[in-house]
Amino acid sequence: MERLAIGIDIGGQSSKCGVVTEHGVILEQTVVTSLIDSFDEYLNLLADTVKELVRKTADRGVVAGIGIGAPNANRLDGTIRYAPNLRWARNAEGKPDVIYLADRLSQATGLHVRITNDANAAARGEKIYGVARGIDDFIMITLGTGVGSGIITHGRLLYGHDGFAGELGHVCAVPGGRQCNCGLKGCLETYASAMGVARTAREFLEKDSRESLLRKLDPEKLSSKDIYDAAKQGDALAKEIFLYTGRILGHALGDFVKFSSPQAIVLFGGLTKSREFFHDEMVKAMNDNLMQVWKGKIEILYSSLKESDAAILGASSMVW
Amino acid sequence: MERLAIGIDIGGQSSKCGVVTEHGVILEQTVVTSLIDSFDEYLNLLADTVKELVRKTADRGVVAGIGIGAPNANRLDGTIRYAPNLRWARNAEGKPDVIYLADRLSQATGLHVRITNDANAAARGEKIYGVARGIDDFIMITLGTGVGSGIITHGRLLYGHDGFAGELGHVCAVPGGRQCNCGLKGCLETYASAMGVARTAREFLEKDSRESLLRKLDPEKLSSKDIYDAAKQGDALAKEIFLYTGRILGHALGDFVKFSSPQAIVLFGGLTKSREFFHDEMVKAMNDNLMQVWKGKIEILYSSLKESDAAILGASSMVW
Repeated sequence: MERLAIGIDIGGQSSKCGVVTEHGVILEQTVVTSLIDSFDEYLNLLADTVKELVRKTADRGVVAGIGIGAPNANRLDGTIRYAPNLRWARNAEGKPDVIYLADRLSQATGLHVRITNDANAAARGEKIYGVARGIDDFIMITLGTGVGSGIITHGRLLYGHDGFAGELGHVCAVPGGRQCNCGLKGCLETYASAMGVARTAREFLEKDSRESLLRKLDPEKLSSKDIYDAAKQGDALAKEIFLYTGRILGHALGDFVKFSSPQAIVLFGGLTKSREFFHDEMVKAMNDNLMQVWKGKIEILYSSLKESDAAILGASSMVW
Repeated sequence: MERLAIGIDIGGQSSKCGVVTEHGVILEQTVVTSLIDSFDEYLNLLADTVKELVRKTADRGVVAGIGIGAPNANRLDGTIRYAPNLRWARNAEGKPDVIYLADRLSQATGLHVRITNDANAAARGEKIYGVARGIDDFIMITLGTGVGSGIITHGRLLYGHDGFAGELGHVCAVPGGRQCNCGLKGCLETYASAMGVARTAREFLEKDSRESLLRKLDPEKLSSKDIYDAAKQGDALAKEIFLYTGRILGHALGDFVKFSSPQAIVLFGGLTKSREFFHDEMVKAMNDNLMQVWKGKIEILYSSLKESDAAILGASSMVW
């Protein structure tokens, strides 16, 4: 009988649960919705899913515990704190609240539960099973609906005093810039995420009168995928949107290097599928914002794990 | 007989050398000039000073080694790399060069030499002997001629992949802003250092026509001390210069918190003497740039050690 762990990757839209072996093989995987308004209902769904996964893999081994990666999750006290994008994590007035997820899921399943920030979980996944194996100092940036980060220094995840280290999606990329869900302005996330790229598209379409394939689409429903498709067809405006994104992201990466001086930056998430259109500009902007000791020396790596696998693997690895 | 260590704090203008006991008492201290053009000459001066200090304290104990804090110093290979402000660290064309200081001083004195970034040395000093005792996660910012930083995470100095972590003085505070000695533009150092405050004064005097005590002084020779003196006398323009400085510094500190989530930020260096004129504005700007989880929670501490003592103590502590 093998020792198994359950890894859960909680996102704003859906939650992915997997059973993982100690060697990082995902035996079973289930996706459930995160679009539930009540925490109790969401908790029941998650607990039922866990129990079902335990049952399904009972002939392979014993599940030793649960590891969760989730936005705004805190490893130290097992809470999710003020996550604007999780519907079930709000109070009676509809405002983001403090949710004791680890304790509650542990009571509901009888399993030990560990929890960390979703980007930290993905960084663990890359360090143990992915492209960052053997790299002791790297910064993982997740370019998804939002922008998250997990920072590995001296071989370990950086948690900081209160467990919230690594909120690089909310570093100010453009002073006085776009309003972010977190309440601040100009956050990197409002530019370098799937949401941010769509906002850039709407801005560009308004202030620029050029022809573009994007004008055929409803501006309010534009997605980063639409812009990628247009760029693929040679659309000049779509290409400029990615160049603009690459410049802002690259400049921010340069500033991150000055903090922890990593060997590499690992990029991960949906937006990396469009990297052919922003990679070069991003690397140039990063090096333009680096001093001589670092110029041209920071490796940019792209995740080698399947999208959701990194977070599931990383989250499950907390059980061992 | 006690075990002693020599701590050296190398600055652009002068180098301070002290003999320190294991309990952090400085027994003897000497200041020598750093304004020497040849590295060999500077090395001889330093080696002679060390030998003299060893002789003077021979009845108290045995010197076990030398610890150095210096700008652009690298702990991992004992070098100083491309330090723009050290005259003796340049090549034949007058450009900043790579200097093998630890090896050369070790050969010249017969003592084991360890070297680190000056701000890292000061951070060690504060952690072991100063205001940051018992704090495992803090960021030390040195506000001197330039801006340096030493980052303590999980109780240890953050070095990063190559030993150069913590160059927060060169994080971009104002995109496209002032030209910095390091080659980049808009670095925090060009605003929140003694040099930066003087630059702000020259800019303000030019674009603002109000009366000010500062107009009586030669703009090219203005120092942060002059501006402090004018503010002390109630000069409105001088006060605004510090408010502007506080706003830029505070906003940058907010972004630093998002990286390592420290319990405290420790401020150190000559400019902190003017803190009565920028502290409140800085704290406000920092909190305005923080998300709910951190707002109002980050302690701002000021060094409790005598100016040069922190770096000498911190540098000497590397010997143990």
